[in-house]
Amino acid sequence: MIRVNENYLKLKASYLFVDIAKRVSAFTEANPEKKVIRMGIGDVTCPLPPVCVKALHDAADEMGSENSFKGYGPEAGYAFLREAIAENDYRARGCKIDPDEIFVSDGAKCDTANIQELFSEDIKIAVPDPVYPVYVDTNVMAGRTGDNENGRYKGFVYLNSTADNHFVPDLPKEKVDLIYLCFPNNPTGATIGKEDLKKWVDYAKANKALILYDAAYEAFIRDESLPHSIYEIEGADEVAIEFRSFSKTAGFTGTRCAFTVVPKKVKAYTAAGESIDLNPLWNRRQSTKFNGVSYPVQKAAAAVYTPEGKAQVKATIDFYLENAKIIREKMTSLGFRCTGGENSPYIWVETGEDSWNFFDKLLNGAAVVTTPGSGFGSCGEGFIRISAFNSRENVLEAMNRIAAVLGKSYAE
Amino acid sequence: MIRVNENYLKLKASYLFVDIAKRVSAFTEANPEKKVIRMGIGDVTCPLPPVCVKALHDAADEMGSENSFKGYGPEAGYAFLREAIAENDYRARGCKIDPDEIFVSDGAKCDTANIQELFSEDIKIAVPDPVYPVYVDTNVMAGRTGDNENGRYKGFVYLNSTADNHFVPDLPKEKVDLIYLCFPNNPTGATIGKEDLKKWVDYAKANKALILYDAAYEAFIRDESLPHSIYEIEGADEVAIEFRSFSKTAGFTGTRCAFTVVPKKVKAYTAAGESIDLNPLWNRRQSTKFNGVSYPVQKAAAAVYTPEGKAQVKATIDFYLENAKIIREKMTSLGFRCTGGENSPYIWVETGEDSWNFFDKLLNGAAVVTTPGSGFGSCGEGFIRISAFNSRENVLEAMNRIAAVLGKSYAE
Repeated sequence: MIRVNENYLKLKASYLFVDIAKRVSAFTEANPEKKVIRMGIGDVTCPLPPVCVKALHDAADEMGSENSFKGYGPEAGYAFLREAIAENDYRARGCKIDPDEIFVSDGAKCDTANIQELFSEDIKIAVPDPVYPVYVDTNVMAGRTGDNENGRYKGFVYLNSTADNHFVPDLPKEKVDLIYLCFPNNPTGATIGKEDLKKWVDYAKANKALILYDAAYEAFIRDESLPHSIYEIEGADEVAIEFRSFSKTAGFTGTRCAFTVVPKKVKAYTAAGESIDLNPLWNRRQSTKFNGVSYPVQKAAAAVYTPEGKAQVKATIDFYLENAKIIREKMTSLGFRCTGGENSPYIWVETGEDSWNFFDKLLNGAAVVTTPGSGFGSCGEGFIRISAFNSRENVLEAMNRIAAVLGKSYAE
Repeated sequence: MIRVNENYLKLKASYLFVDIAKRVSAFTEANPEKKVIRMGIGDVTCPLPPVCVKALHDAADEMGSENSFKGYGPEAGYAFLREAIAENDYRARGCKIDPDEIFVSDGAKCDTANIQELFSEDIKIAVPDPVYPVYVDTNVMAGRTGDNENGRYKGFVYLNSTADNHFVPDLPKEKVDLIYLCFPNNPTGATIGKEDLKKWVDYAKANKALILYDAAYEAFIRDESLPHSIYEIEGADEVAIEFRSFSKTAGFTGTRCAFTVVPKKVKAYTAAGESIDLNPLWNRRQSTKFNGVSYPVQKAAAAVYTPEGKAQVKATIDFYLENAKIIREKMTSLGFRCTGGENSPYIWVETGEDSWNFFDKLLNGAAVVTTPGSGFGSCGEGFIRISAFNSRENVLEAMNRIAAVLGKSYAE
């Protein structure tokens, strides 16, 4: 009899976006004349940079000609892309990362989901709260937790991110083996400074723990004192794996390209205490279960590192950051405490009431869709997330409407 | 302490392609003037069909314009592609498969690798021998086997594919829960008829087993009595998951698109005997760990189903099949028993001696690279695989040289 992986049955169905969709649908049925502005889901809205479009065209032509056609590529990515990443994202910031420590993939979601396969089932895992649900669900599927009780799975150590710690969690009191961190954070928009990040690196070194560092939003950092990569912290290349993506930088959410850095010094251990290098292990995982990213997409990603590409990407991010500033300033002027919106496309708004109540207030009063913070974990209760990925027109209109609903007038 | 998944350490390093590369490298160093013809790896050589190139161009333009830009798509693929697949690959052949039973992905390798996550650790698994190594390695990584002894992992039931059974394995004598089948087969090129396939479907129904049917090479079938899909067998939609790819049909090995069919009737069971639908479970897996295929690539895949696309793909496959015929006929005329090469791009040649000896004979004598059958499993010993993915010129030249080495003259 074919038996199912019963760990999947422990998964709490995520009703967050389903619930949002239902409420929005009910609202639009009752108010067909109102234009709904969606500031909930974190998907980009600006088109691909022209250098990327041109690279896609050129690669399409290459694929159509016998002499330049490309079949299977290297599973970890073409050298031209791995080298561009190592040079521009790492060496240029003083991080010694080699091209063969970079693994190109079709998404940071896939990589943060798959990386747990490399580890034993009985490790102790720390996840942030609020959290990007993929970190949690993939470990539930792998059997590393018990059942869900009151919104938390037994077995995890939850790292509370609250206003008290400025949404940068404190080191855990109990010993953990694997730590998920994400900065600039989704959903809170919080950033981490080098001193705080060093505490985590030191903790990992002292405890032979490993940090999984999700830096998918690093391109939004404008404060030059903040680290873009965990490898800006000395010794991190012994205890950290970093995830990056072209999704939120160059608008690749529908084009699909990302990468993961597994330094050659990073190790895990057998039960007998023998150290095992993770770089060849991830390489083995990827070459067994993955066949590389589409060649035209890799060419488009590499174009991001040309001088024109860098300028085009910066202009797009600047545009989103200006949106974020407008949202943050307006919500602040309306009396709400906000995190993020600087060095991040997300604004995490302290609502002063139940997340869903506030969500409904904005939906029904202003026809603006946000994301209730409680959907990201229990520490998200009392917050909403507003995304800056939108047109300027929509952002201004949404802020106008919100200001009207919340009883104050809106002035640019 | 971060502990490693020690199952990875059981993996026998695959030296097959490394060994081949070393021998080829030694040969070219000693014989720099000789042009090596590579008929080993199963990668396509013809360029993308023009309809696909055009679709890539059109989609690149869409991605470059604000009004037509696409961000995150549905994880399981766009409706336009899922509908085209259901209509053309299934309904047109009398198989009742709905679009929501089709999951678009970036590779059949990924899907055949990931599907095992849905099942319990302690199921009994049957794999063919010779075998596509992904079926084996992914289950080793997941802890479903013991160590490797004499080339076989403890815990698997190996399904011998030999000349005696025409390379279509017999039903296993012991009860198994999960069965990997691949037809037209890689590496043997063997096909399966409806009667034989029905035996497997009946076995699965009688034993509540599940068949994973890899049909990546179905487009090479020209004998209309042979099934293209396992769903041509009545009742298979209750006990089989099918894997398909655009890699070998439309030349997408470097472009990356494939799909998996999980019918709504297919079930697995809890230890308590409760039946669980696999369609929503795979959907949950994919939406948690995957973010959909690149939009331009999905547009290119959909173009395959236009009348021009179908004609262009057929012309390419016809070309490879003519190569296969030339290889098969020549090797047969030289006195070798061959399987495949009809309804398949692979020719499985019975060498009459050790696989590696014969490989060396062709490399050193004819400067032609093949794949030693022993690299695919113990039943592959005494065979080599020749791939028909090449230019006509190379195929003719290779056959000429092989005929000369093996002591007979070559006549078209």
